[in-house]
Amino acid sequence: MKLSRRTLLAAGLAPLASAGAEISVDGNRLRKRIEALSVHGRPANGGFQQGVSRVAYSEADLTGRKWLMGEMRAAGLEPRIDPAGNIFALRPGSDSSAKPLLFGSHIDTVPSGGNFDGVLGSLSALEALQTLHERGVRTRLPLAMVVWSNEEGYAFGRMVCGSTGSVTGFSPADLAESWNASRLEECLRRVGGDPSRTAAPWVRQGDYSGYFELHIEQGPKLERAGIPIGVVTGIVASVRHKVTITGFANHAGTTAMADRQDALVGAAQIVLAVHHKITGGPGNQVGTVGEIHNHPNAANVVPGLVRLTVELRDLEAGKVESMTRALEGEIAAIAKDTRTKILLERGRLRDGARATPRMMEVIAGRARGRGLRVQEIPSGAGHDAGPVSRVCPMGMIFVPSVAGISHSPEELTHWSDCVNGANVLLDSILDVAGLA
Amino acid sequence: MKLSRRTLLAAGLAPLASAGAEISVDGNRLRKRIEALSVHGRPANGGFQQGVSRVAYSEADLTGRKWLMGEMRAAGLEPRIDPAGNIFALRPGSDSSAKPLLFGSHIDTVPSGGNFDGVLGSLSALEALQTLHERGVRTRLPLAMVVWSNEEGYAFGRMVCGSTGSVTGFSPADLAESWNASRLEECLRRVGGDPSRTAAPWVRQGDYSGYFELHIEQGPKLERAGIPIGVVTGIVASVRHKVTITGFANHAGTTAMADRQDALVGAAQIVLAVHHKITGGPGNQVGTVGEIHNHPNAANVVPGLVRLTVELRDLEAGKVESMTRALEGEIAAIAKDTRTKILLERGRLRDGARATPRMMEVIAGRARGRGLRVQEIPSGAGHDAGPVSRVCPMGMIFVPSVAGISHSPEELTHWSDCVNGANVLLDSILDVAGLA
Repeated sequence: MKLSRRTLLAAGLAPLASAGAEISVDGNRLRKRIEALSVHGRPANGGFQQGVSRVAYSEADLTGRKWLMGEMRAAGLEPRIDPAGNIFALRPGSDSSAKPLLFGSHIDTVPSGGNFDGVLGSLSALEALQTLHERGVRTRLPLAMVVWSNEEGYAFGRMVCGSTGSVTGFSPADLAESWNASRLEECLRRVGGDPSRTAAPWVRQGDYSGYFELHIEQGPKLERAGIPIGVVTGIVASVRHKVTITGFANHAGTTAMADRQDALVGAAQIVLAVHHKITGGPGNQVGTVGEIHNHPNAANVVPGLVRLTVELRDLEAGKVESMTRALEGEIAAIAKDTRTKILLERGRLRDGARATPRMMEVIAGRARGRGLRVQEIPSGAGHDAGPVSRVCPMGMIFVPSVAGISHSPEELTHWSDCVNGANVLLDSILDVAGLA
Repeated sequence: MKLSRRTLLAAGLAPLASAGAEISVDGNRLRKRIEALSVHGRPANGGFQQGVSRVAYSEADLTGRKWLMGEMRAAGLEPRIDPAGNIFALRPGSDSSAKPLLFGSHIDTVPSGGNFDGVLGSLSALEALQTLHERGVRTRLPLAMVVWSNEEGYAFGRMVCGSTGSVTGFSPADLAESWNASRLEECLRRVGGDPSRTAAPWVRQGDYSGYFELHIEQGPKLERAGIPIGVVTGIVASVRHKVTITGFANHAGTTAMADRQDALVGAAQIVLAVHHKITGGPGNQVGTVGEIHNHPNAANVVPGLVRLTVELRDLEAGKVESMTRALEGEIAAIAKDTRTKILLERGRLRDGARATPRMMEVIAGRARGRGLRVQEIPSGAGHDAGPVSRVCPMGMIFVPSVAGISHSPEELTHWSDCVNGANVLLDSILDVAGLA
C-alpha cells in the first residue's frame, strides 16, 4: 500500500518519493520458502513438479511444521501451538486493547497433492509479518498469523480439522476417530497439541478483529478470464458420506454370474449414480467418489466388501441435503439389484460460509490500488476461512491456478501471481489493522 | 481298494477277512494336519473359521512349507525342491524302469482364503504315501507327490505359477515380473528354487505315468446334487487382463462435473460392462473385476488413475477370445464417453484342459468300489492339473464345497467328504501304479 509521509516518519522510515511509497513482500524469498517446504513429503527422487504427500500428522507433516517454525523464529516470531496443533504467532500492535487481526492457511496436503494449496497462504502470512518487521511498520491492531492443522483431513466427513475444532471444540467421539491407523487424539499429541483441552472451543466470537486467507483458486475461472485476483464471495457447503457395500466373496471361476453378490458391481453403480443422477440437472453442484477400498481385492475372487466415500458440494446446504436423500434412494435400488447390503453413514455437513462484505471491499480496493483487476468468485473448495467465519469477519483472496488443476502434482500458480496475492494480503492487513 | 490275499501276503501284511481287505487313509491324521497347516497365515486372534492368507512366497507360505516338509520327513519321505520351488518326494516302485505316477496340489492361498483349497489335495497326497508306507504296500510304479508353488498367483495373467513353469519354463520377462513388490526370480530363491535353471521346461512329456489331483469343487454342484465324488471332465480356459484407466486427478470441489476426466467413472463402467454385457447371453462363461486400485484415492480428489483386472473364463478358449474382443470394443466406447485413456494389456491365455478318459474311469470305478456315488463335472476354476495335463494323462477328483463357497474364510468341506476324497485318491493311485 502507499504510505503517507507522516506514516512513514512515524514508522521510523525515511520518506520515499513524493508519489507515495509502497511496501511489498520479498517475492524471491516467498518463492524460495515455497520450494524449501516442498521437499517435506516429496516422492523419492522427485522434483518440485512431482508434487508432495504431506498428509496431516505424517512424518512429512512433522518435519514440514518444524521447518516452518524455524523460519518463523528466524523472522523474529515466536510460534505457539494450540490444543489442536494449530500454529499461531502474534505481533503486538500499538493498541493493546484491540483484538488481533488473524491471517493464514494450512500446510498439510492430500496424498500426491501440489505445492501451492494452503502453502501459499501460510508462507505469505509469514512473509507479510516479516516484511512489516523489516520495514519497521507498526500497526494499530495486533497481528496474528496462523497455520491450521489438518485442513485436508476431512475424510469421511467426520474428521474435525484444526480450524473447525478451534471454533466448535472436539467431542470424545471426534478424538476417537481413526486417522491413518491412529486415533485423532494421538495425532494431536504428535504435533504438540493437547486433546485434554479441546472439549470447549478456544477461538471464540470477538477474539479476533477479522480473518484473511490467501489461497490458490484450485479451479480454472480466474485463469480463463485473465484476472489475477479473485475476491471470494463464499464457500460451498459440503458433506462426505461413508458407504459400505457388503456382498459375498467367492471364487471367480466357479460362481456363476447369476449366483454372485458382487460388492464391486454395487459400488460401480453408486459411482455412476453419483456422477450422472445425483449431480445431474441444472446448477453447479458436484459429487465425487474419490476413495474406494475393495476386499479381498484379488483378481480371482468375486469382491465381498467395498468401502467408498461420496462427497457432495453446493453453495446451498439445502441442495446438499436433497442430493443426500436422492443418493439414499438410489442406494436402496442398487442394493436390491445387486443382492448386496449397502450402508450409508452420513457425514457431518460442513456449512457454507459467506465472506464479509467489508472484507471483500478491502481486498478489491487494495488489489485495484496495485493496478490488479479483480473478479468476485465463489469457492467450490472448503477452506479454513469457512469455520473461522463463524467467529469474526472473513475475507479470502484467490489467485489463478494454471489450468484449474489442484490436489494434483501438476497444481501450479505462476510466481508472479503468488507475489500479487501476497502483496494484496499485506495491503489488506495494513488496511484493516491501521498504522500506529 | 480291496487287496487280494496274494497281494497282501506279498506286501507282508496279514490276510484280512475273506470279503477282501481295504486299506484306507487315517482320516483323523488328515484332519489334524489340515488344522495344523491352517495356523500359517491365520489372522491374529483368529480361529480355523477365520480363514487364512498364505499368499505364495509370503512369510506364512515359507513357514507353512517348512512345516509341510517336516511332516513329509517324519513320514519317511525326502522332500526335494525344484527350480520353481515346487516340492517333490519320490517313493520307489518295484519296476525301476517305470515312470512315476504323480499326485498332489498346492498349499498357497488367495488373501483371506480358505483352509481346503489346494491343502486337501496336498495333504491327502502325503496321507496316501504315508498309509502305503505304514501298511508296507509296495507298488510297481514309483510314486511321486508334489506340492506346486504359487498356484493362486496368476495375477494379471502374466505370472507363471509353479506347475505352468515346470512344463513351459520361465522366460526372462516371467522372472522379472513383479509379485508383491519383489521380482519373481527373487521369490523363487526365497522358497529354495533356482531361477537360473528355469529357462527350459524340466517336467516333460514321458516323465510321469500320469497325474492325479484331489481338490475341493469350489462351486455348489456336488452339494446341491448330494454327490460325494466329482469326476472332473475338464478345466476351463481363462485369461486375466490388466486394465489401466488414465483420467486427470483434480480438486473435487472446484472441478465442474462436465470438466472432469474421472478414472473411477471409467472403471465403474468397465465393471458393469464385464458383469452384464461381456458375460451376458447363453452359456456358463464368467467374467470378474476382482482387483482395483484407485489413485490418489482421497475423498476430495477426482480419481486420476485406476488399475483393475478383468478375468474371463469359459470351457472354450475361443469364447474367452471373443469375450476379450467384445471387452476391447466396450473399452473404446467407455474411454470416449469418460474422456479417459484406457489401456488393456492382454494376459496370457491359460489353456483349458480335458481330463484323460482312462483316468476318469479309474476315479469313477474306485469311488463306486467304496460305495460312493459319482458325477462328472467340469471345473470352472483353474488347477495345477491343467498345465500338467500337457505332459501326461490327468485325472481330477472333486469333493463338495459347502454352499459352493471358496476363496473365502467360509470355505468348508465336511471332514467325511475330505476323507472320502483322500481314499478315492489312494485307491486310484493303487489302481494305476499296480501292486508289486
